[in-house]
Amino acid sequence: MKLPQGFGAYVANIGIKDATNDFTLVVADKICAAAGVFTQSRFAGPSIVLSRENIANNQAHAVVVISKNSNVATGEEGLNNAREVVAGVAKAIGCDTKHVLIASTGVIGRQYPMKNVRAGLAAIPKTFVNTSADDVALGIMTTDTVHKVAESVVAGSSARVVGVAKGVGMIEPNMATLITLLFTDAQLEKTDLDKIFRRVIDKTFNCVSVDTDTSTSDTAIILASGVAGAVDLAKFEAALYQVALSLTQQVARDGEGAEKLIEVCVDGSRDERQAKLVAKSIVNSPLVKTAVHGADPNWGRVAMAIGKCSSEHDIDENQVVIRFGIQEVYPSFVDASGLAELSKYMRGDTVRIHVTLNTGAAECTVWGCDLTDGYVRINADYTT
Amino acid sequence: MKLPQGFGAYVANIGIKDATNDFTLVVADKICAAAGVFTQSRFAGPSIVLSRENIANNQAHAVVVISKNSNVATGEEGLNNAREVVAGVAKAIGCDTKHVLIASTGVIGRQYPMKNVRAGLAAIPKTFVNTSADDVALGIMTTDTVHKVAESVVAGSSARVVGVAKGVGMIEPNMATLITLLFTDAQLEKTDLDKIFRRVIDKTFNCVSVDTDTSTSDTAIILASGVAGAVDLAKFEAALYQVALSLTQQVARDGEGAEKLIEVCVDGSRDERQAKLVAKSIVNSPLVKTAVHGADPNWGRVAMAIGKCSSEHDIDENQVVIRFGIQEVYPSFVDASGLAELSKYMRGDTVRIHVTLNTGAAECTVWGCDLTDGYVRINADYTT
Repeated sequence: MKLPQGFGAYVANIGIKDATNDFTLVVADKICAAAGVFTQSRFAGPSIVLSRENIANNQAHAVVVISKNSNVATGEEGLNNAREVVAGVAKAIGCDTKHVLIASTGVIGRQYPMKNVRAGLAAIPKTFVNTSADDVALGIMTTDTVHKVAESVVAGSSARVVGVAKGVGMIEPNMATLITLLFTDAQLEKTDLDKIFRRVIDKTFNCVSVDTDTSTSDTAIILASGVAGAVDLAKFEAALYQVALSLTQQVARDGEGAEKLIEVCVDGSRDERQAKLVAKSIVNSPLVKTAVHGADPNWGRVAMAIGKCSSEHDIDENQVVIRFGIQEVYPSFVDASGLAELSKYMRGDTVRIHVTLNTGAAECTVWGCDLTDGYVRINADYTT
Repeated sequence: MKLPQGFGAYVANIGIKDATNDFTLVVADKICAAAGVFTQSRFAGPSIVLSRENIANNQAHAVVVISKNSNVATGEEGLNNAREVVAGVAKAIGCDTKHVLIASTGVIGRQYPMKNVRAGLAAIPKTFVNTSADDVALGIMTTDTVHKVAESVVAGSSARVVGVAKGVGMIEPNMATLITLLFTDAQLEKTDLDKIFRRVIDKTFNCVSVDTDTSTSDTAIILASGVAGAVDLAKFEAALYQVALSLTQQVARDGEGAEKLIEVCVDGSRDERQAKLVAKSIVNSPLVKTAVHGADPNWGRVAMAIGKCSSEHDIDENQVVIRFGIQEVYPSFVDASGLAELSKYMRGDTVRIHVTLNTGAAECTVWGCDLTDGYVRINADYTT
């Protein structure tokens, strides 16, 4: 898959951890409209601090990603190192440091190997002829098992939206995901881009949870080169939504140890907040996640997960409807042949849980994955 | 272990699921001061509804527990069945139905086998000569691997506090735990008992989490027979705390698949709410739980779990101190020999994580367990 017009990349190994690519730079032909959302963690890393500062005016020229080391909980030295990376990139491409965004992901609490980083900065080329979005997606990976890319065309125009994402664990983004970079050659006012971006992220990356753990490095950034000209804003939002949705589902499906994608839709809700609260409670329940792993249509655990939203006094167990796929399981029970059918459905690679609260008309859909022995082994055996 | 003076029990198998005891009745010699706290779940079962109603005046004569079936999400029929059990018990012991408490635990969404239940009610004896707290603890078990009992003497008196508890999964009580029954022969005013009970439960059972899932059946009840006479209230509270603390730790240690007890103490906190929020975030983090399982002193995951409490704007990563046991790991790093020592500590059967926030002077301690392949297997293979 190609990046949209107006962008080029440089992806290299600079020896952060092993021989795989760990230094990824995407450079626009000129300053772009840009928007970004970042982790709300109280332990946010220096990359977050700098990028948040630099994107405040909704403009950017380049984004650099260092993978395999998150540069988090590294104190003053870590902040200075991040500044040095941003300055090195700005110098190499000839722009102001405030137009360079940075993201970093990997182990927490370790300093960058700065000798290697300095050599890497010195090796940045003068031109950026690589236009492969796949190379960018591969460069930002840490323990992902597959790289994640998606694209969509803005209807009625030649503009495209292309996105990449990474992240398999420590995934319950609060305002963004581990790292996702989105690019478009559509031309947009920066304030429009910012508004549309936040709306779309809120319905996609902010609705995914692998393990309820929120990363210290969550970053979502979009750059718009403008090369393809102006577009209809609603159509652009639809295209961006398609790309973000695809990346969100790819992240959930590639969750650590995951074997199944879980989609939870809550509708008939008082408001979106309530729908999201209940949907997250279901998709995050270890008992629901293990039931899906075991292909067990155990709706009692879904009822439990709805029930534990104890703040929602208008939820009445006698009004709630629970379905696996399109099959209602509560309050109408299924007979033995229905259960056999359901178990067959639950052995598929995507399980949809659909709950109607009957407290209103709002809805929300969230994504997650099953909880497997693999998740435990990956995270118990991963040594600091 | 014996029940306190003034209580007798009847424990039997009435054929709810298999041949193990599933019907447990504890009867006081006369009406007792009593207190109870119950699940806040929106899917609370009829046992909760009836017991909450019956304990409203802080008096009780008996408590009956049916195990292996929770009688939850069973509609009007389930409520009528629970009423029939309460009425049957009241008739057998000759008291008002409003002085009988009921708790139930087990599979969700299935009606009691009422033919068996009726035969069981008819078989209740006239006298209650069994005074074994162990028999009571064994009778209320479902999938627990060990029974849980604890006792303490009220200092300066002959009064005792004895408690039993059950519960291994779906454990993050919100106002109570799965089921815990406490008995004392101390004599207390019912309003004093109620106040003391709520304070103690809040520091013990409301501070345990096996898997973040809140049961639909959580029930904690205490009955005071008064046979041992009046006691000093502070000393009684201390004795009750010891019993509740022991049961809480027993519940955490027997969590589904658990191999280690995790104790998280957060101090130097702005207030108790903040300390509990951060402590729960740590003890519930799947990444912290798997790190403990793997005996990995991965303090970065503890930092992550603190960081995701994004509502706490006064938490500053530069002021936080993290320790495993008594060994500081952040901000002072440990060297290689220190890490080897720590890994040895983490291979023990209890791991203490101690965080100082330096936002104030409050503190809170919570308990949980590691996340293991065993948890996944138990819950993926358990079929409805």
